[in-house]
Amino acid sequence: MPVDLRIGPALVVPVTAAPFEGWVEVTGGELVHVGPEPSAAPATETYDASGRMVIPAFVNTHCHTSQQLGRGLADDVGLLTWLHERIWPYETALDEADSEISALACAIEQIRNGCTLIADPGGRHVDGMARGIATAGIRALLGRSTMDDGEGRPPVDQETTAQALDRQDELAARWHGGAGGRLSFSYTLRTLFNCSDDLITATVERARALGTVAQMHVAEIPEENAYARATRGTSTVRHLDRLGALGPGLLAVHATWVDDEEIELLAARRCPVSHNAASNLKILGTPRIADMVDAGVVVGLGTDGAPSNNRMSVIDEMWLASIVQKGLRRDPTALPAEQVLRMATIDGARALGMDSVVGSIELGKRADLVVIDPRTPNFATAADPVSALVTALKSENVESVLCDGEWLLRDHRLTRVDELAVLAEATARAATVRERAGLRP
Amino acid sequence: MPVDLRIGPALVVPVTAAPFEGWVEVTGGELVHVGPEPSAAPATETYDASGRMVIPAFVNTHCHTSQQLGRGLADDVGLLTWLHERIWPYETALDEADSEISALACAIEQIRNGCTLIADPGGRHVDGMARGIATAGIRALLGRSTMDDGEGRPPVDQETTAQALDRQDELAARWHGGAGGRLSFSYTLRTLFNCSDDLITATVERARALGTVAQMHVAEIPEENAYARATRGTSTVRHLDRLGALGPGLLAVHATWVDDEEIELLAARRCPVSHNAASNLKILGTPRIADMVDAGVVVGLGTDGAPSNNRMSVIDEMWLASIVQKGLRRDPTALPAEQVLRMATIDGARALGMDSVVGSIELGKRADLVVIDPRTPNFATAADPVSALVTALKSENVESVLCDGEWLLRDHRLTRVDELAVLAEATARAATVRERAGLRP
Repeated sequence: MPVDLRIGPALVVPVTAAPFEGWVEVTGGELVHVGPEPSAAPATETYDASGRMVIPAFVNTHCHTSQQLGRGLADDVGLLTWLHERIWPYETALDEADSEISALACAIEQIRNGCTLIADPGGRHVDGMARGIATAGIRALLGRSTMDDGEGRPPVDQETTAQALDRQDELAARWHGGAGGRLSFSYTLRTLFNCSDDLITATVERARALGTVAQMHVAEIPEENAYARATRGTSTVRHLDRLGALGPGLLAVHATWVDDEEIELLAARRCPVSHNAASNLKILGTPRIADMVDAGVVVGLGTDGAPSNNRMSVIDEMWLASIVQKGLRRDPTALPAEQVLRMATIDGARALGMDSVVGSIELGKRADLVVIDPRTPNFATAADPVSALVTALKSENVESVLCDGEWLLRDHRLTRVDELAVLAEATARAATVRERAGLRP
Repeated sequence: MPVDLRIGPALVVPVTAAPFEGWVEVTGGELVHVGPEPSAAPATETYDASGRMVIPAFVNTHCHTSQQLGRGLADDVGLLTWLHERIWPYETALDEADSEISALACAIEQIRNGCTLIADPGGRHVDGMARGIATAGIRALLGRSTMDDGEGRPPVDQETTAQALDRQDELAARWHGGAGGRLSFSYTLRTLFNCSDDLITATVERARALGTVAQMHVAEIPEENAYARATRGTSTVRHLDRLGALGPGLLAVHATWVDDEEIELLAARRCPVSHNAASNLKILGTPRIADMVDAGVVVGLGTDGAPSNNRMSVIDEMWLASIVQKGLRRDPTALPAEQVLRMATIDGARALGMDSVVGSIELGKRADLVVIDPRTPNFATAADPVSALVTALKSENVESVLCDGEWLLRDHRLTRVDELAVLAEATARAATVRERAGLRP
């Protein structure tokens, strides 16, 4: 029996095992051979990877696909202006067709940055988002932005707890397992400011029943903890624990403002954290990620959305997370490259409950791989190619990307879509959305 | 009379004036026309820049070209290990031919990141460095790494004050004004740990006489200020001021650990600062750059060297400096994009005493320009293209680079050198240097 695809000879970096010079083979989208020599089987397709590296595709644990048309809408403004005067008007103006192009353009940026699995914390037009992502071909945990409580919500977001849950059930029925299994539905919670305890409890339960994680922005700003104390009598993380929500089934996004005891709590409950270094620096503050990792918390990396980063690249997030945590601790040994590489791959997959499917190069896992060309001025002379994946890699090194055994990028070209045509439409729609929202930066 | 080169129609961002849709024309390497319409003259060459942006080339105010072969040599280790066990053995093992390839590979990375002017704080083999840079075609302030004092210097670096100065005079005579005026010589000082007061005073005088700036690593770590107090009775910046060294003729590199009074002193003496955001986070600590800018200090951006960054890109430094200062102040309005863009262009040129030559698009200046292609997923949808130059730009957007009226990069291809051949030689030499230095990371 021939294998579908043989890639090699390359420096293979499985992440969960030591790097080696060798081969990776794929059949039916599954990794069927990983080793220093190719198997004896003939191959339907061979990819000559001489001088290249083969790594697991990156995982982006926090990726607002519906904000892709809002890049640069909120540069150099404070948090309240950012949210109330820019993001909410933008999100309200976005229609379903816009959301589809927004998600597609975002997915293209993910592919070009070697990422094939994202967790989307939710938009308004999930059908559009799902279609955009399915067109691009990457994996996603889809979400619907959910709020049932609190002040300041746009009128269109005013709904009851039951409505918020019903609409998500409907979307889960429609999209969970879609696009040949590459799409999952993930119940989401915006923040404690806008979610009732009933919604939190029911959301985590429903995600558990569906076999996915729930996503929630947690302890983003000091004011959130103050609000939690005023309305619930304790901080966000402690309150979530009291509700029984803290666990492997809840992805705590940001966790910017947590104290030592809360870090211990996240570790003890095996509650994963999504770290978004750029967005944190730009708006929220910098969380103690190195301390969380030392405490045993599973941490993945995320880009957040285009208006808050503004680069939607896990590659840039690796470099940034690495040096920012060294700076925060004033210790160049903090968060070493090997750890950051795990955060961008297997730990990201674990945070999304998908580490048995992707996140490393192991027999039996799905074939989500990136072929890296190190022959660029930023990378070629690096002493340790594995460390350089974190410290020196850039999107220009991403030569080819495989998702579920299918090439989404091959020799720097997207295989499924006309990239320039999509970007031209995205650019035009972004301008129209700004116009409709009355936003002229 | 025909013009040599006409570029347009593009969004032209002069930096020192408002952006406009129009044309830029070059004759004899000089900007001879800048405006919304092309001139009436015929053009020998026309560059169709429809849908593109034209910006001044970036300035890298701190770029150790001789460390390019040492990328990744010192990841995830403390400062003393970094310097004594990795960098000094590496630098000692580097020969002149290595230095030439190191500088050439570094210059290639600069070109691909839109940078045509660097300040090199100095290596051991200046002739090799100069040849490498001249081959690539960019501008540089060359320097020789100079130490005449203090503990721990490698034996080969043990020289007297007179020797240190004589060797620099010789190099200045050989290289200042070389490569058709693209090379200048710049007297350098390593740090206060390793430079006597006589050397500092004489160096600044000689740089002034030559019409260039002197470069010095200043107040890098708290221990340096403690050493300054122990040996000179006051902190580094205050001591330099007492010596009469602080002024437009001294580039203070890093200035990581300075207090309010020292910031005022830097501003009052018009002493420019080179800010290296990535290297600072990785090793030194983060300086209060937004506070310096508010106080009136001229700040340029720098990459430092490949072992301490590890990306040698002013583009990445812009993004990083912007979000790190916002994070440091916990204020998203700190260091707005327009300011960061100035730091990467005109203020960088000013810091190197070259703002009458390059750093902006103005009639009569030399033609150091970058053509930006915004049609990539990271940039296309941005609300404000000028802000996006700081927040979203990546090296893949650098389509073409002009230096002194000559294309060094044209349609993503280097014009002067066989890039892959140079990188292959650099990779091989990097391995040999590590071998000679006994370094096996």
